[in-house]
Amino acid sequence: MNGGTNLAKKLYGIGVGVGEPGLVTLKAVEILKEVDYICTPMSAKSDSSKALKIISNLIELKGRIVKLHFKMSKSRKELEQSRTAAARKIYQLLKKDKKIAFVTIGDPLLYSTYSYMLKKIKDWDNSIEIETIPGINSIAAATSKYNLPLAEEKENTAILSNIKNEEHLERVFNLFETVVILKLSRNYEAAYRVLEKLGLKKNVLIASKCGFEDEFYTENIEVFKNRKIEYLTLMIVKREGIL
Amino acid sequence: MNGGTNLAKKLYGIGVGVGEPGLVTLKAVEILKEVDYICTPMSAKSDSSKALKIISNLIELKGRIVKLHFKMSKSRKELEQSRTAAARKIYQLLKKDKKIAFVTIGDPLLYSTYSYMLKKIKDWDNSIEIETIPGINSIAAATSKYNLPLAEEKENTAILSNIKNEEHLERVFNLFETVVILKLSRNYEAAYRVLEKLGLKKNVLIASKCGFEDEFYTENIEVFKNRKIEYLTLMIVKREGIL
Repeated sequence: MNGGTNLAKKLYGIGVGVGEPGLVTLKAVEILKEVDYICTPMSAKSDSSKALKIISNLIELKGRIVKLHFKMSKSRKELEQSRTAAARKIYQLLKKDKKIAFVTIGDPLLYSTYSYMLKKIKDWDNSIEIETIPGINSIAAATSKYNLPLAEEKENTAILSNIKNEEHLERVFNLFETVVILKLSRNYEAAYRVLEKLGLKKNVLIASKCGFEDEFYTENIEVFKNRKIEYLTLMIVKREGIL
Repeated sequence: MNGGTNLAKKLYGIGVGVGEPGLVTLKAVEILKEVDYICTPMSAKSDSSKALKIISNLIELKGRIVKLHFKMSKSRKELEQSRTAAARKIYQLLKKDKKIAFVTIGDPLLYSTYSYMLKKIKDWDNSIEIETIPGINSIAAATSKYNLPLAEEKENTAILSNIKNEEHLERVFNLFETVVILKLSRNYEAAYRVLEKLGLKKNVLIASKCGFEDEFYTENIEVFKNRKIEYLTLMIVKREGIL
């Protein structure tokens, strides 16, 4: 318990935006300078981390990086095992009274692996101090790049990570002026058919790997009929049109 | 046309987050240091600007502030007049080859007055260079403060600025795991009744004036039966519960 003084240990969940180092917040930089370890998620297959790349020119990383490899598995059990192992690694460091940052692209609480780390660690030990620093998400980054108002005044906005079926998406379009579809790779087919049916195929902005060197934007939904859709791809549909 | 050289004039729409100066991005600070004028929205009645307060300790403001007074009117015409006047003021400065920042709390393209400025100025003069810098929005700020995952994996998220009626909201709850209700002051009655009907009254986080000195958070929806709901108040409802 650190002799009754304030515990040094603390977990910071830090959003570092989406590619450009300039989109990191002042507070994130300040905390990243100060922590003992920076835990960074990466896929089990690769050894590169997008979040790490963003901060690599902003702060001194040397000797402070802890790589957490996450499996991209369709098996619930494998996914869970990989996440638990990562959370355990973080928790081990916290038990040594360390200050730990878990960095993530986008916002840590919007469709990010940080959510799982947070829940696990809270579950194991409710006394750990945790602070989350919000980050610029990919939707804000994409609309900014295009100077495109996402929603105004009395408009309603849907963010879909998973289109259950075409009827589901049609019902969403009946209720919302703006619809954002994340993970377009798994949602493209259903989205395409519904947009065609509703006459909205020209009302889209597609942003792929937003903010990164190989980012790609298009308003032409047809492009992806013959092109692989990258993992980090989103589509914004506005009923009133994009421009 | 500035003698054929690169035009100096440029409009920057800059999101400065929601209260804490630490939530401003590096890029926003850099641009704000450099521009000739900083245009800041304020209500016609008051002379204070939340956006200005956030940046006042980060950069030198002296001699660079242009106050834009916006009417909060229910009359479409009055609203439009007030916005047009503000846009015209910005455009006059741009015509003098100045670099102008329009600062806004939250994200400039998510329910912000900047959208109107952008459209007006584009309409008047398509040659003006415009760059938007995204900002941390109040939803990300509120979830961060509570370490609350807004949405994970295959969950879908609705952001409602305007609940048309109770049936409308019920239909939204049938389709979404997470529902964010902005502008709670005008949406509270309908939301309360639907949440009661669906047994979700305990699944809420309410954040008022998030990030500001007088911010207020509660998970108790009943509090607002006898308390004024401030303008900048949002409610997050999670079907699976808040904690």
